[in-house]
Amino acid sequence: MTTPYGPSYVRGIAPYVAGRPIAEVARQFGLDEARIIKLASNENPLGMPESAQRAMARAASELGRYPDSNAFELKEALSAYYGVPADWITLGNGSNDILELAAHAFVEKGQSVVYSQYAFAIYALAAQGVGARGIVAPAAQYGHDLDAMLAAIADDTRLMFIANPNNPTGTFVDGPTLEAFLQKVPRHVVVVLDEAYTEYLAPEHRYDSIEWARRYPNLLVSRTFSKAFGLAGLRIGFAVAQPELTDLLNRLRQPFNVNTLAQAAAVAALNDKPFLEKSAALNAEGYRYLTAAFDKLGLEYVPSHGNFVMVRVGNDDRAGDRVNLELLKQGVIVRPVGGYGLPQWLRVTVGLPEENEAFLAALEKTLATV
Amino acid sequence: MTTPYGPSYVRGIAPYVAGRPIAEVARQFGLDEARIIKLASNENPLGMPESAQRAMARAASELGRYPDSNAFELKEALSAYYGVPADWITLGNGSNDILELAAHAFVEKGQSVVYSQYAFAIYALAAQGVGARGIVAPAAQYGHDLDAMLAAIADDTRLMFIANPNNPTGTFVDGPTLEAFLQKVPRHVVVVLDEAYTEYLAPEHRYDSIEWARRYPNLLVSRTFSKAFGLAGLRIGFAVAQPELTDLLNRLRQPFNVNTLAQAAAVAALNDKPFLEKSAALNAEGYRYLTAAFDKLGLEYVPSHGNFVMVRVGNDDRAGDRVNLELLKQGVIVRPVGGYGLPQWLRVTVGLPEENEAFLAALEKTLATV
Repeated sequence: MTTPYGPSYVRGIAPYVAGRPIAEVARQFGLDEARIIKLASNENPLGMPESAQRAMARAASELGRYPDSNAFELKEALSAYYGVPADWITLGNGSNDILELAAHAFVEKGQSVVYSQYAFAIYALAAQGVGARGIVAPAAQYGHDLDAMLAAIADDTRLMFIANPNNPTGTFVDGPTLEAFLQKVPRHVVVVLDEAYTEYLAPEHRYDSIEWARRYPNLLVSRTFSKAFGLAGLRIGFAVAQPELTDLLNRLRQPFNVNTLAQAAAVAALNDKPFLEKSAALNAEGYRYLTAAFDKLGLEYVPSHGNFVMVRVGNDDRAGDRVNLELLKQGVIVRPVGGYGLPQWLRVTVGLPEENEAFLAALEKTLATV
Repeated sequence: MTTPYGPSYVRGIAPYVAGRPIAEVARQFGLDEARIIKLASNENPLGMPESAQRAMARAASELGRYPDSNAFELKEALSAYYGVPADWITLGNGSNDILELAAHAFVEKGQSVVYSQYAFAIYALAAQGVGARGIVAPAAQYGHDLDAMLAAIADDTRLMFIANPNNPTGTFVDGPTLEAFLQKVPRHVVVVLDEAYTEYLAPEHRYDSIEWARRYPNLLVSRTFSKAFGLAGLRIGFAVAQPELTDLLNRLRQPFNVNTLAQAAAVAALNDKPFLEKSAALNAEGYRYLTAAFDKLGLEYVPSHGNFVMVRVGNDDRAGDRVNLELLKQGVIVRPVGGYGLPQWLRVTVGLPEENEAFLAALEKTLATV
């Protein structure tokens, strides 16, 4: 008998299951790619903003060169936009990179990481990847129960992940409640506040987490350009935290983790206010449309603050997979969330009006037959 | 007194120092970017191949979508090109990502990693990033001493890094010697064979490491598209190994680590044989030109098998930094290698003929005055 390669905690990892790409579904079901509707990965249905396309085209002549490892221009732009010095900013290959860097930078094998039931799947993977113990705090109403999270902190806890809004459930904790929570978290526990969907919040729900980073030395705010900013395919996210935390992330960061085009496109997207406003408005309208239809169909859903909504498609634990398969056959890709312990639900991204309509038509047809 | 954040092994990391970007040097020295010559990062002076530019343009319409997490088309292309199944391939955000994934996948805190003196700096950083002990085997003639590396293996060694050719020294171990070494490495030690510069090898030096991956279950071959393929700014590299090792890397790999444009461009570059041949020929010619000039100037250099050459610019330990500064003032960026324990040397990338000439002119002027 030979000893297997790698630490046991690595061998035990079950990799993340991504939303299925259009081309893959087309191959499997023999469908025309152009007719497939993908509402599976919470992407911006408007795609990449034109401003970012132009910036990318200008940067495309130098791709034989390595990217700027320190991302001078993008850090200047983020610094000006968010009002923090450049040495408070860490850039990531998507915010996924930030989340993993945080686990590597703040936690070692045998210590623990706290996150919520139903929270974004990468938190558990990031903890497992460093051999840490994941402590799952029970959710309340499918969202973060901050009292339960405080109670879950152990002596060896070094990191907590909070997603606000949360993916895949769409739940939201308001700013004052969140800040009251931050005051109670022991200073030796780093809190990663993952705000991938923050640009979709209604004006009355917005809060200034960057300002909190000034007050809480253990707070790291994580943001992404993959959602409202429309740059998912380019891979770019960032973190804001005081220099002590930022410095540790940058010690571990791969020197060229953010490619040249992502850097250029992000500078443009960051300052494209009309695009962000259009994206948020389209999303609000689509969300109202989808949830009104769910109400009419008598389908339960979790009120969402993101660009997606989780809907219950049956009362048995095969419902999610069953309905998902029927939707796939009709060329509609959504996301099953059985892996989150939510096998009766599907998560659907808010798309363009015609995509939302097509999804609803396919869903109605499916529910009438299965 | 408060306890600092993060494991002590993370706090102890000294981050990688990248080649200085043109824009940064222009800012610092008040120079015109267009007149700066960068021979600091072993990039392909021909830039990105046109075939890859076209492929990238075709893929640019879908950047609001996440990349294909499984990179179906690129894996198919690599699989066909190298004659290995897709489940032997791991894609990385540059081969830097592969090197770090290997450390995370095969080594845990307290175990050890063997690499050579003067070997690529990322090996030590990757080991340190997982809290492993780095064991540095002494070099011979600035290159890998494989007997010394075998002797350096400890009971707790789980990983070895071999760069062939090596960066920054350019040294090379021939195929038969390397395979004899692989036969002697204990099976529980994974060997990462980093072949970032393999496409620059002269025909008589080539060997088939992919074939070795079939025979040695502990071998992982790492390749990059950043050098001869000309895609450094896009970030794409890959590894070939048997499924047991590949599976572990993929458990840790960030699901969207390789962006959409890198995937598309790599498929095109992989099959652009004329571009690769032109790149290798240009490099061979430039290398002969530079080394002939070094001979004439009486400057020692290490014979190189990559697209760069390390030259000794003085006999005191401030020579590298001193000459480097003077070159920077003249708008020529090369790489000091004092961080490698080689303070009398500079590493210069083989550029276009006019870049090589300009570098030599600046070097001669500098050596005549300092």
